[in-house]
Amino acid sequence: MEEEILALLNAVAIGTQTPSQALHHLQSLSFENVGTFAKIDHHRRLRTGFPEVVFGMGKSPMQIVQIMQALAQKEAVVLATRIAWEVYPLLQAQLRGLQYHPTAQIAYLGEPTPQPGTITIVSAGTSDLPVAEEAAVVAEMCGFTVKRLWDVGVAGIHRLLYHQPLLREAEVIIVVAGMDGALASVVGGLANCPVIAVPTSIGYGANFQGLSALLSMLNSCAAGVAVVNIDNGFGAATLAGQILRLAYNTDRANS
Amino acid sequence: MEEEILALLNAVAIGTQTPSQALHHLQSLSFENVGTFAKIDHHRRLRTGFPEVVFGMGKSPMQIVQIMQALAQKEAVVLATRIAWEVYPLLQAQLRGLQYHPTAQIAYLGEPTPQPGTITIVSAGTSDLPVAEEAAVVAEMCGFTVKRLWDVGVAGIHRLLYHQPLLREAEVIIVVAGMDGALASVVGGLANCPVIAVPTSIGYGANFQGLSALLSMLNSCAAGVAVVNIDNGFGAATLAGQILRLAYNTDRANS
Amino acid sequence: MEEEILALLNAVAIGTQTPSQALHHLQSLSFENVGTFAKIDHHRRLRTGFPEVVFGMGKSPMQIVQIMQALAQKEAVVLATRIAWEVYPLLQAQLRGLQYHPTAQIAYLGEPTPQPGTITIVSAGTSDLPVAEEAAVVAEMCGFTVKRLWDVGVAGIHRLLYHQPLLREAEVIIVVAGMDGALASVVGGLANCPVIAVPTSIGYGANFQGLSALLSMLNSCAAGVAVVNIDNGFGAATLAGQILRLAYNTDRANS
Amino acid sequence: MEEEILALLNAVAIGTQTPSQALHHLQSLSFENVGTFAKIDHHRRLRTGFPEVVFGMGKSPMQIVQIMQALAQKEAVVLATRIAWEVYPLLQAQLRGLQYHPTAQIAYLGEPTPQPGTITIVSAGTSDLPVAEEAAVVAEMCGFTVKRLWDVGVAGIHRLLYHQPLLREAEVIIVVAGMDGALASVVGGLANCPVIAVPTSIGYGANFQGLSALLSMLNSCAAGVAVVNIDNGFGAATLAGQILRLAYNTDRANS
Amino acid sequence: MEEEILALLNAVAIGTQTPSQALHHLQSLSFENVGTFAKIDHHRRLRTGFPEVVFGMGKSPMQIVQIMQALAQKEAVVLATRIAWEVYPLLQAQLRGLQYHPTAQIAYLGEPTPQPGTITIVSAGTSDLPVAEEAAVVAEMCGFTVKRLWDVGVAGIHRLLYHQPLLREAEVIIVVAGMDGALASVVGGLANCPVIAVPTSIGYGANFQGLSALLSMLNSCAAGVAVVNIDNGFGAATLAGQILRLAYNTDRANS
Amino acid sequence: MEEEILALLNAVAIGTQTPSQALHHLQSLSFENVGTFAKIDHHRRLRTGFPEVVFGMGKSPMQIVQIMQALAQKEAVVLATRIAWEVYPLLQAQLRGLQYHPTAQIAYLGEPTPQPGTITIVSAGTSDLPVAEEAAVVAEMCGFTVKRLWDVGVAGIHRLLYHQPLLREAEVIIVVAGMDGALASVVGGLANCPVIAVPTSIGYGANFQGLSALLSMLNSCAAGVAVVNIDNGFGAATLAGQILRLAYNTDRANS
Amino acid sequence: MEEEILALLNAVAIGTQTPSQALHHLQSLSFENVGTFAKIDHHRRLRTGFPEVVFGMGKSPMQIVQIMQALAQKEAVVLATRIAWEVYPLLQAQLRGLQYHPTAQIAYLGEPTPQPGTITIVSAGTSDLPVAEEAAVVAEMCGFTVKRLWDVGVAGIHRLLYHQPLLREAEVIIVVAGMDGALASVVGGLANCPVIAVPTSIGYGANFQGLSALLSMLNSCAAGVAVVNIDNGFGAATLAGQILRLAYNTDRANS
Amino acid sequence: MEEEILALLNAVAIGTQTPSQALHHLQSLSFENVGTFAKIDHHRRLRTGFPEVVFGMGKSPMQIVQIMQALAQKEAVVLATRIAWEVYPLLQAQLRGLQYHPTAQIAYLGEPTPQPGTITIVSAGTSDLPVAEEAAVVAEMCGFTVKRLWDVGVAGIHRLLYHQPLLREAEVIIVVAGMDGALASVVGGLANCPVIAVPTSIGYGANFQGLSALLSMLNSCAAGVAVVNIDNGFGAATLAGQILRLAYNTDRANS
Repeated sequence: MEEEILALLNAVAIGTQTPSQALHHLQSLSFENVGTFAKIDHHRRLRTGFPEVVFGMGKSPMQIVQIMQALAQKEAVVLATRIAWEVYPLLQAQLRGLQYHPTAQIAYLGEPTPQPGTITIVSAGTSDLPVAEEAAVVAEMCGFTVKRLWDVGVAGIHRLLYHQPLLREAEVIIVVAGMDGALASVVGGLANCPVIAVPTSIGYGANFQGLSALLSMLNSCAAGVAVVNIDNGFGAATLAGQILRLAYNTDRANS
Repeated sequence: MEEEILALLNAVAIGTQTPSQALHHLQSLSFENVGTFAKIDHHRRLRTGFPEVVFGMGKSPMQIVQIMQALAQKEAVVLATRIAWEVYPLLQAQLRGLQYHPTAQIAYLGEPTPQPGTITIVSAGTSDLPVAEEAAVVAEMCGFTVKRLWDVGVAGIHRLLYHQPLLREAEVIIVVAGMDGALASVVGGLANCPVIAVPTSIGYGANFQGLSALLSMLNSCAAGVAVVNIDNGFGAATLAGQILRLAYNTDRANS
Repeated sequence: MEEEILALLNAVAIGTQTPSQALHHLQSLSFENVGTFAKIDHHRRLRTGFPEVVFGMGKSPMQIVQIMQALAQKEAVVLATRIAWEVYPLLQAQLRGLQYHPTAQIAYLGEPTPQPGTITIVSAGTSDLPVAEEAAVVAEMCGFTVKRLWDVGVAGIHRLLYHQPLLREAEVIIVVAGMDGALASVVGGLANCPVIAVPTSIGYGANFQGLSALLSMLNSCAAGVAVVNIDNGFGAATLAGQILRLAYNTDRANS
Repeated sequence: MEEEILALLNAVAIGTQTPSQALHHLQSLSFENVGTFAKIDHHRRLRTGFPEVVFGMGKSPMQIVQIMQALAQKEAVVLATRIAWEVYPLLQAQLRGLQYHPTAQIAYLGEPTPQPGTITIVSAGTSDLPVAEEAAVVAEMCGFTVKRLWDVGVAGIHRLLYHQPLLREAEVIIVVAGMDGALASVVGGLANCPVIAVPTSIGYGANFQGLSALLSMLNSCAAGVAVVNIDNGFGAATLAGQILRLAYNTDRANS
Repeated sequence: MEEEILALLNAVAIGTQTPSQALHHLQSLSFENVGTFAKIDHHRRLRTGFPEVVFGMGKSPMQIVQIMQALAQKEAVVLATRIAWEVYPLLQAQLRGLQYHPTAQIAYLGEPTPQPGTITIVSAGTSDLPVAEEAAVVAEMCGFTVKRLWDVGVAGIHRLLYHQPLLREAEVIIVVAGMDGALASVVGGLANCPVIAVPTSIGYGANFQGLSALLSMLNSCAAGVAVVNIDNGFGAATLAGQILRLAYNTDRANS
Repeated sequence: MEEEILALLNAVAIGTQTPSQALHHLQSLSFENVGTFAKIDHHRRLRTGFPEVVFGMGKSPMQIVQIMQALAQKEAVVLATRIAWEVYPLLQAQLRGLQYHPTAQIAYLGEPTPQPGTITIVSAGTSDLPVAEEAAVVAEMCGFTVKRLWDVGVAGIHRLLYHQPLLREAEVIIVVAGMDGALASVVGGLANCPVIAVPTSIGYGANFQGLSALLSMLNSCAAGVAVVNIDNGFGAATLAGQILRLAYNTDRANS
Repeated sequence: MEEEILALLNAVAIGTQTPSQALHHLQSLSFENVGTFAKIDHHRRLRTGFPEVVFGMGKSPMQIVQIMQALAQKEAVVLATRIAWEVYPLLQAQLRGLQYHPTAQIAYLGEPTPQPGTITIVSAGTSDLPVAEEAAVVAEMCGFTVKRLWDVGVAGIHRLLYHQPLLREAEVIIVVAGMDGALASVVGGLANCPVIAVPTSIGYGANFQGLSALLSMLNSCAAGVAVVNIDNGFGAATLAGQILRLAYNTDRANS
Repeated sequence: MEEEILALLNAVAIGTQTPSQALHHLQSLSFENVGTFAKIDHHRRLRTGFPEVVFGMGKSPMQIVQIMQALAQKEAVVLATRIAWEVYPLLQAQLRGLQYHPTAQIAYLGEPTPQPGTITIVSAGTSDLPVAEEAAVVAEMCGFTVKRLWDVGVAGIHRLLYHQPLLREAEVIIVVAGMDGALASVVGGLANCPVIAVPTSIGYGANFQGLSALLSMLNSCAAGVAVVNIDNGFGAATLAGQILRLAYNTDRANS
């Protein structure tokens, strides 16, 4: 839009538009102006290598295909999350080169550009894996290095303590846990870096679809722990990515 | 009541009552019969050395005094829980020999008879102390040995691990924790004995008066952990006491 | 690991390692050290006859088969809970000797070694049976004797009272009830031993998937009652088993 | 209003009003007609001896005085519930003859006319007494006979069973209980008459201000139990009174 | 058991048992005594014409058949509630003479004996019909007369007011409503008899499976309204039946 | 009914009925009187062009067909909401001329009469479309003009700001949003007209079936925002229609 | 800001600024531009006669005084809501001419300019008056005519029906009710205009601080009812005012 | 501890301890080893300049004084949060040099060492200030630069947009909002950095003590937003500080 305004100002400067005509014109532009900001957003996202992500839940296969096709025109990497394995073949038939991570339930097009920074992901039980893998695959598709530490729930605290060096050296940690969510507090106490907790809905009874882990994590007695929505591996990976971008000046260096 | 029935049967034996008169009489007795069971309950409680406990919340000082006086007629030890420190002087003025534990908010009469067995009580933070001490004082007034392990929340897991031998040697453990309640899961994983978890209402925000710790503990991923009501230190001590009585055959030996 | 450290110290003693080389070596061992504790845990579990248990919910048949196969290498008894009856044939095809308890929804390999001690399990209604049987079968597979008392809900209190002697003689009682959960309070008042309450999700309307029974049991006016998660028959059996092990000195005698 | 309409019809009959004038007149009356029904309601209430009741919570002493004075013009008995003991003197200064029941927190004017029928009220613990007495005093002020059975909670089931004849002979029972609310189910199973359950907010922790008892009672496994709002002793007494009026044909006989 | 005791007393009278032998014997009988009460319960139910009811939800067709067969040995009328229409043929194949009410989802054997008294059932919307019909069919199978007033929700208050005479003449009213549950309050204000409110789970969104109607009904500003569990048409009918039995002295006349 | 009363009054005037006969007759008419009001309601609805709407959820296809047929006798437009696409063919086979809007899940008969006034509908995400379209189609079938502004969630606030002129010129706005429901607050702050917020149940985790959006909207910090039930696009459209009718004096002009 | 931009364009036109200097200048202005919109908002509010409102809860008297003083510089009418009566004297000492409505708990400065349009406010019980009066006083201070209809709860439906003409003639209705919230549904069914429902937190027990009325109103079976936050009389009045402004073209006429 | 082990190994090397004596000694050291880790934690905290923080809620003034005194021995900066203004003088009398921030309710000793990095804190309303200032003061006491942006709630979105450059340049943002919590989503959409959302308990009605803002923020449709506990300004500041430490390599550079 800068060009448009400059052209307009040039027109004023050379007298082909009066100032009041130009004022009127500027006012009509003012919301396209906002639209232009949105484009700038779009550029920024590309530049930092973050892929576009389609949230697949509640969308028909056809809708997902159409959105992915549109995004793939402009983006190097396009992800679709919450894609059940029986839906994937329907997508694959329409989207050449589509790949699929069955545990993470993520379908994707393209290859990520490597980014500096490592995200350490810790999960409590095998049933938390779909959410933990959603975080891991999103992080990897953003180009980050991912360290996976699966099945280290606090009921067997020594398995976790064995990996304490990994936690202490981490740059940013995502903790994925259902049931009692206690892993977030323990990791938060052991780590010396930002910790993002993802409660999962895995469990039964007084778990109440993830409420127990959510409340437990929000009340973590370890400072420096923040929580995203239940089962929201994607959101945790995105936040972790933003923390790493800040840390490696990816954004500021390029801006 | 045994005497009454025996007298009745003797009357039948000697013919001063016909069998059908006696039948009628027995039927009218049948609920006093139940009342007698209650007395047997009463005797059993004395025998095993468990004190009578008055739940002080919602009772007037005068009501508490009257109930404690009545119980003190028959019991060696009488406790009143949830006695605020400003209420204690009012009770003390009426009950000679009354003593008070200010953190546990327990007033008591008498001295316990020592019982075999040790209850290990672990608490997460200093703000959980009133509930932890309620459990400890009730256990001590029942005659049990109590080991206190205060301020070992999971955010500093090494403080807890330092005391791991204590946990492994424990006979029965009470875990008192608010906020995320994660201590119960960690202790449940480290211990090799029954664990009773007491959520506390200490906290703020999404703690929701203890709900977060309660749900977290109910969902403990460590097997062999059971939960009592929020802030119910008394109930935990009672259950721990029953477990020890079973272990030391206190009850069966005497019965 | 003791041997490894001793070998190392011997190497220092004979001068093939300097003290600072040995220090470095010790530090690298320190987490395997923790791993060794885990092995000790493992041995302890075998020794006391407690089986390994796979929580089947949310795992694929193939995952269950693989975990059970791995465990069966080292364990005399392996259980999988929450195995729907239509899943069982898939497991059976892969696991020779697998047996199945349809009401408890438990598949198992091996035969338990008998343990001293009896667990009395009381359930309120026929619809609570799957949870009650989960507790019963887990307890039996741990080697304990189980006494079942089914269908004695409080709406017909006399059915329960009829079995009062059974309750009074019990060593440890598991109460399984949905709906109003009132059975736990009544049994807690009648019994003279530890009582573990299991709320069930059976019911409708204001039952809210077991919340009514859970809250009712947590608020039991009978002291000495603790609660496990909704539908968690397995957890109740494990805790009951730990109480009995303490009572019969199973653990201490062998340690 | 009958008279008014009859007068109007007479006016039509004698020709002092045309039919269409009368139609217009009738239409303007039609809502006063409804107002007249309200008066009939009023008469009916007086006739059956049910007092007017002022719900005191959230009203200023002055408001309560004014409403009671207005009602006392027309009613033999006027009650005000939820009157704290420190408010009573303020009312008494303005309302001659006002009496007060401190446990029930009810102030009242007048004496009830005796009604046939007995309401049996059963309460679980001493802390439930304010609600139980609210029910009892309201019932008595309606003229019914009240049988009180206090402190028969299910943790000591034999105290309740001792009074089983009282329950079996009852015409209508009100059960007042907090905590686990289990008393309603047990009484519902023992009794052979309508049972009205009143959950109370007494308790702590997972009681959640009466929610545990409310849900427990709604899920009562005894058929024929209905529930009123938490702490609503007044509502229970009113319903019990209506049941008795039906039973003794009080209403139909007079109508 | 009376006979057993009488025989025993005769044995004492004739000297074949000593009084203390008899005492010992009596004590061992004391719980069978309780078992006898249960039989009396059973007789009482038969006498008053109330059928036995099987709660079908969560039971297999085979279990339902077996229970109904057993009950049909002793009872004139046997009901099974919550029987989906696709389950009915499976039952019918095994139970000769079984009939089915598809809206009420009730299968039944036998014909009720007419009882004096009428239950008026009012429902708000067509979607509340399954619950309303459950109440109606249970009431009819108990022998009571049922008046149905369907589809009179408060959004069209005049439909309800049109039937005001029906409400005023009613002996006992069951109000079935979902959504806002407001019908209970309005009917409670119009009626002059006991009102039993049944919230239904019909609705969506902030209905939360019947919670909105449940809370609304519990908070009814009309006195004399009591509430049963969400969707519990059966419970409402049972309570209404007990109220009518009291009113018509059915029970007392025969007792 | 006016005619009936007038005829009656004429009968009194000419002496074929005595005044007291007429009084008796009038009393028996009094509720039909109310029934007449209901007819007036019916006429009013037709007059203002609002269609009759059948709520399809929980009704069988046959029930829907019958109700639509009955309504189509008297109404120009008949709608059925919550009609799944697989149900539509079943209806279409019975109802000639039935049309269907698949996203809105609305089937309808007839064509609306255009009404003055425009309803602007704003939705946050593509997954909110079914609810937004339900509002839009209901509004259009009432005859109003609808402006749709889809996919302007607050995470990309500039998309919404771009359309700010549309919001400022709006007469009444319906905001449809799930998840955080934040769109209602932002639109409420930007708009200068009544805003009706519809929370949707779309989402996962701590969305709790729409609870998060519902609470967020109720707490909107923008004044002049009101909320309807979760997913209740129909209710929002109806309220918006009533606001427009008031604005255009549609109703008053005709009355 | 228009002037600033025009001056800038003139500078370009006359050559004292180059087009690219002007572009740079314009970009720095762009958010002040937004700030100017805010001023336009401000003007609009004054023009339509809506007063500025200070939400008093959680603010210190000094903060309230300062904000009211600042607003009174520019506004004809300034309101502060949620002002407890003991706070009012503190405000009055600092704010000359401050007046106070004790039931509504509103302090205000200035006199409203009359606006066309009437808001009818209906409340269920006397305890709902503070909220109902908050709505009424806010509406009156906006200049609207208010009709108050107090104490017409649905338990005595005839009181409400008596005033049916008032409801049918209403332009917009605010319904204020606590407890069962049923009044909203009944009024929604009787009225032919937009209805705004305000749940109140008045009540006890299962009212849960207004949750029962809130849910009931959200589930109102009457279409065309929308709900504002619990106790939010102010929000309801604001929305009602916006509806009337639309109806009377107040806004469009002046714009 | 390294020294101790080295000394031991030296003793083995020179033969003053046998290898098996050393083994025994090492085993007894193993938990002090863990205790040593805790000391390392302590050192790390000092090095990075993060102060020790005492959570004041639920602690007596005397407890707070004692803990602060102990910490002040070793730490440059000691904070106590949640200190009511009336408690501060009691602390000040005991702790020389204690200072107090009344809005943040934080008392502190010492002066922070400046750290690189800026935390931008955005709050919605004036009533959110206590929580926003808690975050701000904690961040400042950790040595970070804080930019405050108060009172930019989304109801007046232009105030926020005016400050958009501030948001886009931010390194890490803390968003503090109550009520609808919508500010977090809007800021999350505008910002290009990590966003930490703090729900506040400010509000009334359906706010439910912060639940509405909490759920809204967890469901934020903007990716890269994480949430801490309700009112937990301290936790948000700590996490923000850890993110900045990572970004500026504070930690890694020194380690």
